[in-house]
Amino acid sequence: MGRRYDTVSFLSDLGTVDESAGIVRAVIRDLAPHALVVDLTHEITPFDVRAGSLTLARSISYLPSGVVIGAVDPGAGTARRAVAIEVADGEGVLVGPDNGLLAPAVSMAGGAGRCVVLDIVEHHLPTPGPTFAARDVFAPIAAALCNGIDLAELGSAVDADELTPGMVPLPREEAGVMMCEVLWVDRFGNCQLNVGPDELAGWGEQLRVSVGDPHDPLQRVATMATHFAQIGTGAVGLVTDSHGMLALALDRRSAATELGIGAGDLVVLARYDETQASAPASSPVSLGPTR
Amino acid sequence: MGRRYDTVSFLSDLGTVDESAGIVRAVIRDLAPHALVVDLTHEITPFDVRAGSLTLARSISYLPSGVVIGAVDPGAGTARRAVAIEVADGEGVLVGPDNGLLAPAVSMAGGAGRCVVLDIVEHHLPTPGPTFAARDVFAPIAAALCNGIDLAELGSAVDADELTPGMVPLPREEAGVMMCEVLWVDRFGNCQLNVGPDELAGWGEQLRVSVGDPHDPLQRVATMATHFAQIGTGAVGLVTDSHGMLALALDRRSAATELGIGAGDLVVLARYDETQASAPASSPVSLGPTR
Amino acid sequence: MGRRYDTVSFLSDLGTVDESAGIVRAVIRDLAPHALVVDLTHEITPFDVRAGSLTLARSISYLPSGVVIGAVDPGAGTARRAVAIEVADGEGVLVGPDNGLLAPAVSMAGGAGRCVVLDIVEHHLPTPGPTFAARDVFAPIAAALCNGIDLAELGSAVDADELTPGMVPLPREEAGVMMCEVLWVDRFGNCQLNVGPDELAGWGEQLRVSVGDPHDPLQRVATMATHFAQIGTGAVGLVTDSHGMLALALDRRSAATELGIGAGDLVVLARYDETQASAPASSPVSLGPTR
Repeated sequence: MGRRYDTVSFLSDLGTVDESAGIVRAVIRDLAPHALVVDLTHEITPFDVRAGSLTLARSISYLPSGVVIGAVDPGAGTARRAVAIEVADGEGVLVGPDNGLLAPAVSMAGGAGRCVVLDIVEHHLPTPGPTFAARDVFAPIAAALCNGIDLAELGSAVDADELTPGMVPLPREEAGVMMCEVLWVDRFGNCQLNVGPDELAGWGEQLRVSVGDPHDPLQRVATMATHFAQIGTGAVGLVTDSHGMLALALDRRSAATELGIGAGDLVVLARYDETQASAPASSPVSLGPTR
Repeated sequence: MGRRYDTVSFLSDLGTVDESAGIVRAVIRDLAPHALVVDLTHEITPFDVRAGSLTLARSISYLPSGVVIGAVDPGAGTARRAVAIEVADGEGVLVGPDNGLLAPAVSMAGGAGRCVVLDIVEHHLPTPGPTFAARDVFAPIAAALCNGIDLAELGSAVDADELTPGMVPLPREEAGVMMCEVLWVDRFGNCQLNVGPDELAGWGEQLRVSVGDPHDPLQRVATMATHFAQIGTGAVGLVTDSHGMLALALDRRSAATELGIGAGDLVVLARYDETQASAPASSPVSLGPTR
Repeated sequence: MGRRYDTVSFLSDLGTVDESAGIVRAVIRDLAPHALVVDLTHEITPFDVRAGSLTLARSISYLPSGVVIGAVDPGAGTARRAVAIEVADGEGVLVGPDNGLLAPAVSMAGGAGRCVVLDIVEHHLPTPGPTFAARDVFAPIAAALCNGIDLAELGSAVDADELTPGMVPLPREEAGVMMCEVLWVDRFGNCQLNVGPDELAGWGEQLRVSVGDPHDPLQRVATMATHFAQIGTGAVGLVTDSHGMLALALDRRSAATELGIGAGDLVVLARYDETQASAPASSPVSLGPTR
């Protein structure tokens, strides 16, 4: 017998419009009645492995000890493998497709321990058609782990190096500017970048922001701010967000809408040259929906 | 005392935008603290009894032993009755309006055992206005069942034959073609039909598909496929889905959008006559948003 | 040690599109594994303290004994205080921002008992950036209360009179007409007003309804109805809803859409003068989308 778990954290792109996520919860309740499912979100854009992986990575340090199901799985039904990955000396086990979805969260949790490919069908649900992996594989495997079945009994051991790596976009400094990417747009339109405040230490309190093109003629000036309310009306702020990353933000308005940017977009940050004569000469600037 | 239950599976058209579904969960937690609510979905289109009944029927075989609340109830406030229906020798009890919502799930679970009309108001919540049935009747009845109160104490016995039957559309073969109906469009746009692969055994690997009209000039050719990824780009597949039914599908695109069909629509399947000269001559075909 | 609680009811404007509400649930599960989170709704319009406070007030009498988190918090990151407020002799504790969100629910629960400002950071989560109050303050405080830590240990006592009051719009009778406000539009488009049937006793079975202007030339006649199905097709009803308030409603159609009104709008009710010659002469009236 392995360690028993009593919580299954659950993230997917299944949505809530139909019963799919509910069926996964029902299967876990049926097979491991003592375990509680904690829903993270099921509104990952369908098939958006990148968004799902970043969401799991932001979440992992807040999850209770237990099993984590990640189900964003464009390759369901193909030869892609399903895996379970132990982290933090067995404090947690991540279960999902081997498509890079779990990898950033595994890294955040200190790296992979034991890994198995979920190839023992006796631990899966029988299905009337092709496998619905979240229902037929991930849920019963999570329940089995909660019931104390050891990881090694659930599939063939595989080396962590053989798993599909995650894609975490890194910022890069180039010719004195920082090429960043929007990791995530939150409900309020704040655009989390893949840089933290430490990486911009010494760049000053004001930065030029270009969207999609370092020579963007519509570039703005953004002011570093420690919280959203500190941003002036109409001004763009670069705020350290609650994950410790910098986010482009406006006070009580959507930076994504006003700047016309979304997840995955390139954002270029440059030092603001006070001596330079060209516009924009002042900050805060008033922003129209120019894009 | 009757059997005690510890899970309440819960489906409704209450949505999640306001607190309605939450209040039902709160009432159950208050009255039966040991019971866990498993939400199936609350996004059934308001008043769509047909969609709710098909969702419950798809779900029932995956639900843990316990109570099931179905709350899609356009006749709330009228003389329509509320009922509780035992299934599977008491493994489960379905609670909801007597409007056909529960009937297909009851059939899937092997048929009705004991049935009662929920006409004993002492088991309901007092209400400051007209009854909100999910909150004031279904939730306290579910809690009472979880607490071991026998079904017979909750209302007047009624014969299962006297309950409103469900509407499960059956396919029909007519002049050599199969008249089908779209049961459900899932989040990914796959259109589940009311036929399984057995009913089309011997019809060949390619079928003609007409939408809404057997003489539809826009008819397509669909290819039988065992999983979504097997469908070629731009081609229409007829895939056995994870419920064992055939679904019209495109690889990573929405068949509902591309074919212009929705739940309840007629779909006609016909044998593909290789010797016939008329178009479409080839398959896969490229599909534009023609409707 | 204080009283232990085992339920956390949770309302917010965090939405369900990302993991924010899920992280709050995860933190509570981690810190107080015996406690169950009951989600009320997370779809309060971002920053709409009024809507959140009315939702909590509608809900409070149905909640089980325990902690209630209310997280609608436009001032997060500013100097606004976080508070915990005991109600009903300790049957419940409401936790949230001191911005009026909790006040109407506290009133409905019989008024405030002990109150504390949550200023002891040892009871909060450390955060990599600015505080995300629901995750870093409200969740760990709720968990601490569930674990039996007394309210007095969680912050500095504050007098209830010093807390930000709630805004509950009261109807007012003026020159023989009742000036009302739409409190809430439900999923079905019914518009709950801030008057109950008792306040209109003696006004008759039919009332004139003006929207936004007492001299509105488009005024309608509404008929008092005891349930939705009693309203004739095309007619406007004034129905006592399941909260005991009057709601403008149409049978199976959206009154909000047809009348062009929303939460917060002024609605003027006047006696229907049978002797008056001017239109509308008959009821039910047919309503077009005139606004």
